[in-house]
Formats: sequence, structure tokens, C-alpha cells
Amino acid sequence: MRSEATFERYRQRVQSALDDYLPAVSTEPQLQSGRLYEAMRYSVLAGGKRLRPVLAMATCKALGGDPENAVPAACALELIHAYSLVHDDLPAMDNDDLRRGRPTCHIAFDEATAILCGDALQAMAFEILADAPSLSARQRLAMVKELARASGHAGMVGGQAIDLDAVGKQLDIAALERMHRHKTGALIEAATLLGAMAAGSSNSAQLDSARRYAAALGLAFQVKDDILDVEGETHTLGKQRGADADRNKPTFPALLGLDAARQRLDNLHQEACSALKNLRGETYPLQELADFVVHRKY
Amino acid sequence: MRSEATFERYRQRVQSALDDYLPAVSTEPQLQSGRLYEAMRYSVLAGGKRLRPVLAMATCKALGGDPENAVPAACALELIHAYSLVHDDLPAMDNDDLRRGRPTCHIAFDEATAILCGDALQAMAFEILADAPSLSARQRLAMVKELARASGHAGMVGGQAIDLDAVGKQLDIAALERMHRHKTGALIEAATLLGAMAAGSSNSAQLDSARRYAAALGLAFQVKDDILDVEGETHTLGKQRGADADRNKPTFPALLGLDAARQRLDNLHQEACSALKNLRGETYPLQELADFVVHRKY
Repeated sequence: MRSEATFERYRQRVQSALDDYLPAVSTEPQLQSGRLYEAMRYSVLAGGKRLRPVLAMATCKALGGDPENAVPAACALELIHAYSLVHDDLPAMDNDDLRRGRPTCHIAFDEATAILCGDALQAMAFEILADAPSLSARQRLAMVKELARASGHAGMVGGQAIDLDAVGKQLDIAALERMHRHKTGALIEAATLLGAMAAGSSNSAQLDSARRYAAALGLAFQVKDDILDVEGETHTLGKQRGADADRNKPTFPALLGLDAARQRLDNLHQEACSALKNLRGETYPLQELADFVVHRKY
Repeated sequence: MRSEATFERYRQRVQSALDDYLPAVSTEPQLQSGRLYEAMRYSVLAGGKRLRPVLAMATCKALGGDPENAVPAACALELIHAYSLVHDDLPAMDNDDLRRGRPTCHIAFDEATAILCGDALQAMAFEILADAPSLSARQRLAMVKELARASGHAGMVGGQAIDLDAVGKQLDIAALERMHRHKTGALIEAATLLGAMAAGSSNSAQLDSARRYAAALGLAFQVKDDILDVEGETHTLGKQRGADADRNKPTFPALLGLDAARQRLDNLHQEACSALKNLRGETYPLQELADFVVHRKY
């Protein structure tokens, strides 16, 4: 795709910024919290798709801003995402051993360190936003507020609680979508909104279109995840194929059948693309991001 | 003490504000995250000494501010404190069954809910600060930044990591103090600083005195905790007496002997009181708070 080089540049910029933000392991050896710092670096710097950072920076650009202004937001979003994965993988939660092709944090370190690691990553996300030197106080506050709302009890964490409660239950498709709109959708919407805020956008029609794009994209991402869990390859996914089905979690293919799930994915893709038509800036990277979400193999 | 009625009024004000801020259990029954909301309310509204909120409000008053302006900060501090207790009590951490005389969160609910509960409480703390209507954008940002710093890897969570690493090791007294200055001291200092910020204080000599008061108070609090663990009564403490010693954790009485630990407590008390002499406002409530920390039975 045309934007791949741009996205790769965004990813590298965020990787380098995260590396700078994260505490160096050697800073305070006498404090013996080096193991925590190692766990934080291990959980964040390993990579992953960096969907949220790329989305924030691409949205900033699409609304006429300098993507560099979205770097603090991009890092904060990735830290929240990384903390949620570390906690989600814990034995008391999903009990996963493998993440991004490597041992999960509590396997590579230990459970207590993984709990603290997630807690520290969350605090760091808000510290970075509050401290972003290139943004106005108003922008920084709006970002803190949106990220806290989207990641907390009414957003991502609330969605994880619904997910916990759903294991072994019969959910209908509306309930499944509601869960995902909280669990993963809220943070993906926040990525788009923080990117728009970094561009200084306050046109509510534009923000609303960006939000509609993100809502469709976020749900598409989840439907695709469920489809990949059925038909993907473990070595490409970096996690066990069929893990969700084994755990008797409700999924789109399980509820709709694989063909109808693919159809739903197509519809969401169209919804996302149609929302982009209302944006005035350079939107083809966001278009290509939607294409990537739908066509990815991992 | 003269200020007890004032402190009780502060506690009630914070209790009522927390009750309003926390999500109502019945708001979204169809979302099935009611259990998370219940756990959040259970972990925050049960009470406790509310030391950090009282400290924030009393410092605001001591620096000439309206304590009402410190209510959002007081609630945010208490939410961070509550989340740290919920996570600290988990089986992989301290594995405590009893807190404030009631089953800990993961016993009353389950481990997964307790992990999510702590995560949601942390996000809520920052949301409340970013949204505090009576404070300027500059005040709110300064508070978010200080609270994130004090509660994260360089503060409270870093101290918990040091604590984990210290179990079963021989720490000297300097290392033990360093651990506590992070684990509990950082948040107590933040309570004082956020209270000063709510008063609009920017006199660096005053802020420095407030910080020195808080540093001595925070460490005194911990020395007293260790002494109570040796000589307190389980039914008064609301937790198991001797729990720290049983776990072979380093404590001030274990390292110094009980008499020298009491002497250290007295010295810290004097240090706190002496720092107050440099503050220009109404400081006797802070004086009495120091007296309470040293003389408390629970």
C-alpha cells in the first residue's frame, strides 16, 4: 500500500519515543526496582502492530496537523494498550503464555511483577500526556480526560469485565458487539480522537466523522481477530490459534457462522470508508489502514 | 484533638464525593459489568483512615485555600491508594484475606475482578483530576503530572517492586527507608503537594516546607505501622497482627529493635512539626495530623 512507508516511519518514531520515555534499567540499581523496569521495557518495546499509535498520527495528519504533535498521545495509547495486555494475560484472567511470539510478562518475570508492570505503564501514560511540551494545556487536559474515560470502567476495563462475565454464557450478537465496542473499540476511538486533538481540530462534524470511522474500524478489527482465531496460523499470529474457541468465548464466527462474519467485516469496512468521505484532509492513509485491518493475516 | 471535627467533616465530604464519582451499580445492567462497579464501590467506600484526603484538604486550608477546592484531588488520591491496596492484597502479591476488617476484594469477588477493579480505579483518579471544574487548566495539569509521577514506577509502584524484591533479604535501615519513601511516602507527599496546588500556592519555599513535612510524616506513618504490627491488636488493626513478621519482611522494629524504632518515630514527628514552622497559614490541624499518625492505635 502507498502509505506503508509512512506507517513504518510512524512506528519507528513511536518506538524511539517509547524507548526514551521508559525508565532505563540501570538508573537506580540500589533501589532494586530494576526488575520492574525490565518488565516494562519487555512488555512495551517488543513490537506489535502499533495500530493505535499509527491511527493517532495518521488522523492528526488527515486533519491537517503535524503528526509529530501526536507522538505523546501515540505513546500514551500504546502504554495503555500494553498494560491491558499484560493484565489480560495473567493466570486469573486469560492465562496466556504466549504474546507476540514471546513468553507473556508473568511467564518471563513473575505474576507480582506483571501486576505492578501494568500499573506503572498506566500511570506513565497519563504522565506523558500531562507533560507533552508541544501541546497546549487545553489539549493535554482534553487528552487525559478522553484517555482516562476510554480506558476506564466505562470503556476498556468495563469491556474486560463484560468479557469475563460472558465466558460460558450464551451472548447474542448485540451483546457481543457491545462488549467489543467497550473492550477494544473505546481505545481505538480514543486513538482517533487524540490524533484529532493533536491536530487542534475542534470542528465537531469532522470529529464526529473521525469517531464514526474509528467505531467501525475498532469493531472490524475485532471481527477480523475472531476470524483469524478460526483460520489463522499460530506461527503467524504469535499466539495460539483457536484459543478463544477453546476457552468457550463467544466470537463472531461462532455466533454468525464464518461466511456471515466475513460479510459483517465487509460492511464495517464500508462503514469506515464512508465516514472518511466527510473528512477534508488527506484521508487515503486512513483508508489504507482500514484495508489493512480487514486484510491482515496476523 | 481540636481538629477532629474538621477532619471528620473532610472525611464525610470526601466519602460523599467518592460516592457520587463512582459508577452506580444499576446504571448498565445489560452490560454485565455491574460486578466490576460493585467491586469498585466495595473497595473505596468501606472507609479507612482517609489520611491522604484529609492531608490534602488540611494543607489546602493551611496555605490559605478553600478546602472544597481540594476535594477532587482528595478523591483522586484515595482512589490511587485504594487501587494499590486491592492489587497489593492479591495472592501473587501479599495474599491478604482481610483489609479494614472485611474480606479483601479478590476474596469478596474474585481475582480477575480485583485486577480490573484496581485498573479502573487508577484511570478514574486521573479522569477526576482532568475534569475538576473548580480548578484552572494549569492546576489540573500540575496535579495529573504529580499524581502520575508519585504513583508510578518512580514512586509508589516502584516502591512496591523494591518491597517484593526485599522479601527474605537482609536490608539495612537506609534501604528500608528508601523503600518506604517510595512505597508510601511518595503518595503522602503528593497529597500535601496537591493540597497546596489546590490552594493556588506557588511560593517555592512554602511548597518545600510542605514537602518536608509530608516526607517526615510519610515515613513516620510507616514506622508506626511496623510498630503496630508488633504490638497492636488484630481486632483494632482490621488486619492480622504480626503479618509482616510472619512473611519475613524487613521492618523498623526488626532492624532497630522496638525501643530504637520508637525513638526514630519521635524524631520523625519532631521533623514534621519543625517543617510546619515555616508555613504561614493555619498549621495546627497539620500538627494534629502528625500527632495522630504517631499516637494512633490502628
